[in-house]
Amino acid sequence: MTKNIDLKEYWENKPQLLPSVSIDCVTLGFHNNQLKILLLKYKNTDYYALPGGFINLNEDLEDAAQRILEERTGLRNIYLEQFHVFGSNNRRNDDTHREIMAGCDIEMKPNNFLLNRFISIGYYALIDFTKATPSPDELSDSCMWYDLDKIPTLMFDHNEIFRKALETLRTMLDEKLIGFNLLPETFTMNELQNLYETILGEKLVRSNFQRKMLSLGILERIEKKMTGAANKAPYLYRFVGEAY
Amino acid sequence: MTKNIDLKEYWENKPQLLPSVSIDCVTLGFHNNQLKILLLKYKNTDYYALPGGFINLNEDLEDAAQRILEERTGLRNIYLEQFHVFGSNNRRNDDTHREIMAGCDIEMKPNNFLLNRFISIGYYALIDFTKATPSPDELSDSCMWYDLDKIPTLMFDHNEIFRKALETLRTMLDEKLIGFNLLPETFTMNELQNLYETILGEKLVRSNFQRKMLSLGILERIEKKMTGAANKAPYLYRFVGEAY
Repeated sequence: MTKNIDLKEYWENKPQLLPSVSIDCVTLGFHNNQLKILLLKYKNTDYYALPGGFINLNEDLEDAAQRILEERTGLRNIYLEQFHVFGSNNRRNDDTHREIMAGCDIEMKPNNFLLNRFISIGYYALIDFTKATPSPDELSDSCMWYDLDKIPTLMFDHNEIFRKALETLRTMLDEKLIGFNLLPETFTMNELQNLYETILGEKLVRSNFQRKMLSLGILERIEKKMTGAANKAPYLYRFVGEAY
Repeated sequence: MTKNIDLKEYWENKPQLLPSVSIDCVTLGFHNNQLKILLLKYKNTDYYALPGGFINLNEDLEDAAQRILEERTGLRNIYLEQFHVFGSNNRRNDDTHREIMAGCDIEMKPNNFLLNRFISIGYYALIDFTKATPSPDELSDSCMWYDLDKIPTLMFDHNEIFRKALETLRTMLDEKLIGFNLLPETFTMNELQNLYETILGEKLVRSNFQRKMLSLGILERIEKKMTGAANKAPYLYRFVGEAY
């Protein structure tokens, strides 16, 4: 096991952070018609977790969320939305913290800041899967995409945080056209429909879906290049609505 | 000015609270076809504020929100929803805190907990106007209903918190049928339409509105009592949908 003195010092004497508040991110990407979620696995343990972190003393909450996810994905200006604060008094578990720290060879002294109570602000992030470069944090040995139907048991209330995020996302999908954040710059109507079906967890009628999407006035159809050969490729579209 | 030693001690040495986190409540009631909001005015100052408070060290976040509003309205089991966390680093203002405390003859020592940074969790509450009994807290001399178009300038970012609550409420109105929390047990179709129009800030077509509401299968029409005299009173309805 690697010992890293700076790391030890940081976690043992965690300095200038806003007390009591953490951030957890439900980070979703879309790839091969599958919605995927970004998860960490802590070193030398079986604990999986949502990417998360803390707020520096003079840092805006929204900046902290962006910074935390930039560190895990390499992306800036991520589409991020707060969706719920998880504030139950029984969401602490000192033993879990001790095991995670022990996996990194870090001793938890009784006054370690992690042993205080935290409320956690849940954000969902919708990112273009192809652009992210997942990177583990200093306590974890992997940061990877998981299919939504293969999410392992997560630590604390992180499974509940995920479920609440998905519920909110379903409610907000039409309201805010947020799904486009999950697609590359150009996409086929079929890809768009697959995305909606995946998030909503139900099949949609193709003709109705296409009519509805086109009626919103937010899609630009990209003209095909003339190649001489018969061109059977589907039309590509680009999102030209208001950015969210 | 009344001096209250217990009060002084409490605010000068505020004891077992979760650091960094406050709660602010946008509390709406509906009366005489007007949407109204509950506001406090601090003693001997011109500062108006949303009702709010803090979280006890071992108290669930949701319980804290219920407790805070029970103290201001006398009501239990209020319909309350988190809608946003306000976490900008510049939402502090030490001078404002000092003026409010001076108005109550309380000295702010440099280490007073109120001078730390707080993020605030916004809740909106929808209550039956007729059942609430507004009561000021120990720092304020009034707790009253104000028409939405007559809201005074509020302290800190409380006007922004109100605007965000109203925006969320408009988005969620159809999604969750939450408007019924603002009505007494029985109401006319006209009262229901007035409520929707007031929240949405726009006029609705009567026949469409009535058809839509009846089609949801959530309204029970109460049969009129036979009185002998011609009865021109409108039908009364009762909400029989799933409780939110």
